[in-house]
Amino acid sequence: MFRPFKKDFTWQDVDLLAYKQEGGAPFKDVTRQVLFSGDDLKSELRYFEIAPGGHTTLERHEHVHAAMILRGVGHCLVGNEVRAVHTHDLITVPLLTWHQLRAGADEPMGFLCMVDAIRDKPQLPSKDDLEALLADPIVAVFLQGENK
Amino acid sequence: MFRPFKKDFTWQDVDLLAYKQEGGAPFKDVTRQVLFSGDDLKSELRYFEIAPGGHTTLERHEHVHAAMILRGVGHCLVGNEVRAVHTHDLITVPLLTWHQLRAGADEPMGFLCMVDAIRDKPQLPSKDDLEALLADPIVAVFLQGENK
Repeated sequence: MFRPFKKDFTWQDVDLLAYKQEGGAPFKDVTRQVLFSGDDLKSELRYFEIAPGGHTTLERHEHVHAAMILRGVGHCLVGNEVRAVHTHDLITVPLLTWHQLRAGADEPMGFLCMVDAIRDKPQLPSKDDLEALLADPIVAVFLQGENK
Repeated sequence: MFRPFKKDFTWQDVDLLAYKQEGGAPFKDVTRQVLFSGDDLKSELRYFEIAPGGHTTLERHEHVHAAMILRGVGHCLVGNEVRAVHTHDLITVPLLTWHQLRAGADEPMGFLCMVDAIRDKPQLPSKDDLEALLADPIVAVFLQGENK
């Protein structure tokens, strides 16, 4: 019933997991911890942490992401909007909307993400989707961050 | 999609609300902010803040509370267990389990709480329930905190 916070944004009795199991989705330097999940809850609350310079997968899906930055700062793409995000900022990712989070170069960025327990699998962008996103120069700068 | 964190643990476009609307449930110095809620989510994420010396209602219900302390320190009762809680600690309140949170005397304590969107109303303790809780000296000291 009580799981204390430990050093370095880990928690007692919470496993530190790989971000994704499958091999096909591109991401960089992300960990996952499932903080709350179970039969008596309709949703899950997860904590993801992106190492400096890392990023989550660029993806979309038919479920909503409800996220709060818990640690650090970075940038976030939702749809075709890119924003600087800071600790405790809230991010809502609507249905079928492309999104990605990127940590800054100097410190990790961690965020909570609430999702429905029963949900669809993420979709990756096609070549056409990616070209459409890259047509916006601001989005292009964001997505090409890893090449800086 | 983006709602920045503001000063004093409030957020852009999030209303600062009274903790409870009804008059019957005893509590002291608590505010409520609904961070995420809507038709496309099976759960809600709320932020509650207890002023120094304040406390939530002693209650139980048939839904689970999944909570994280976001700010400050205090004490928490779950069932017949009382624990000191600190920023980022996790608390799970199982079905039909008495619980209450109390802030310390010196600073506010804020916490996130994830719940199913569709849920039952809280139950308050009967005189017999309260006597059973107070029979444990540790629980009694906790519950009588407001009389210190």
